[in-house]
Amino acid sequence: MAGSRGVEDVVEVVVPRLQDAVAVEVRNLAQVLASRADEVRAKAVADHEASLARERKQAMDERAEAIAAAATAARERAALGVVSRLLDAVRRLDDEATLSGVLDALADLAAAEAGRAALFVAADGGLQGRRLVGFVAGAGGAARVLAAEDAGVAGQAIDRRRTAWVKRGAHAGAQDRPPAFATLPADRTGVAVPVLIGGEPLVVLYADEGTEDNRSDSARWIAAIELLARHAGSRLEALAAERAAAFARAGR
Amino acid sequence: MAGSRGVEDVVEVVVPRLQDAVAVEVRNLAQVLASRADEVRAKAVADHEASLARERKQAMDERAEAIAAAATAARERAALGVVSRLLDAVRRLDDEATLSGVLDALADLAAAEAGRAALFVAADGGLQGRRLVGFVAGAGGAARVLAAEDAGVAGQAIDRRRTAWVKRGAHAGAQDRPPAFATLPADRTGVAVPVLIGGEPLVVLYADEGTEDNRSDSARWIAAIELLARHAGSRLEALAAERAAAFARAGR
Repeated sequence: MAGSRGVEDVVEVVVPRLQDAVAVEVRNLAQVLASRADEVRAKAVADHEASLARERKQAMDERAEAIAAAATAARERAALGVVSRLLDAVRRLDDEATLSGVLDALADLAAAEAGRAALFVAADGGLQGRRLVGFVAGAGGAARVLAAEDAGVAGQAIDRRRTAWVKRGAHAGAQDRPPAFATLPADRTGVAVPVLIGGEPLVVLYADEGTEDNRSDSARWIAAIELLARHAGSRLEALAAERAAAFARAGR
Repeated sequence: MAGSRGVEDVVEVVVPRLQDAVAVEVRNLAQVLASRADEVRAKAVADHEASLARERKQAMDERAEAIAAAATAARERAALGVVSRLLDAVRRLDDEATLSGVLDALADLAAAEAGRAALFVAADGGLQGRRLVGFVAGAGGAARVLAAEDAGVAGQAIDRRRTAWVKRGAHAGAQDRPPAFATLPADRTGVAVPVLIGGEPLVVLYADEGTEDNRSDSARWIAAIELLARHAGSRLEALAAERAAAFARAGR
């Protein structure tokens, strides 16, 4: 049909058509390759997510195991440590052969648990200071003799024959306060524990966390101090009875 | 130049050349797209690695924090739990108003700590069984009176006035064995603690882990039992002194 035309004419017709055809093919190829790139990326993302999920799951499992193991180890160490410490304290009280030795040891041991401690002997309706540990130097004079109205929780512990806590606020009475000589910040715990000797509250141990760093274990040290005060009480009773028996034998 | 040839000839020449040129272009394009796909994949992989590394770092940080927090919480809970439990035991001993009440309570409390407990009173060179807790029914008869050669660690605790452990092996002597009535597997711990009354070992407490499940806290329960035996000893001494004083008053 086009036999009469020149080559240039033919080329002008054929080349654009071929170009068009090739352009279509190239676009198709580009689409195929682009969609292949999308697949590659999607697969990489999916692999990434799957690998992350596996890793997260494994990390969470290992973490739960590590936490459980750490908690168990901490629990056993802490339990052993606390019992050993209390046993050492009881042994120390048992090693004291005199009433005053037991009283002084009790004050020292209580201060080691709580932070500060003061030991009083009930006398003449008030309290006589016997040993102060951890208080500022000035407190000693004020604690030498505590009138009933200055005794705070220490007086309450004697009157009620049981552990008394420092309380604050509008409803707190005079016997809920720390003893007058003790300066105790409002967020610190203080308690008084009676030392019962033959059932009588002849001695009272006051202990508090003092003014130093905050503590989170007040329930623990309060329980430890009550335990030590109870043991000291029966030690004092046994020693007093021994002394009375020796006195009776000597007087016979 | 090619004016004399037919259109078909022209097409035969032009088309292959165009095809070649296009093939080159397409290969170039394919290369570009393939290398773009490689880049995409490499970037996805790098992003994945970076994201994994960030996540791992954060997970390890969080894990360390979680472990520390769990250990602290476990430590405080365990410490409080152990002290509260010992204080309850000491309160129970203090609530007993008679010698036999204190002895029975001590055996019960020791069994609660260790697994099994047996309390003996020293008499006539041997030991008189006072209370068995946790042993099989048949043990009671055999433990009623323990000759010195059957007492094992219980005899050693009396003789040496201190806690004695069950030992095994070729070098273990007769006083290193569990008491004859107690069947104790070789991997279980057993101890005997003297109860000193006025310094005299008049009573001995034997306790062991029995035949049930394995335990990892033997150091803890042994310390707890020594503490309770010491407190019971001073309670017994105080009660005995009270009774002697009442007796003396009555006889006056």
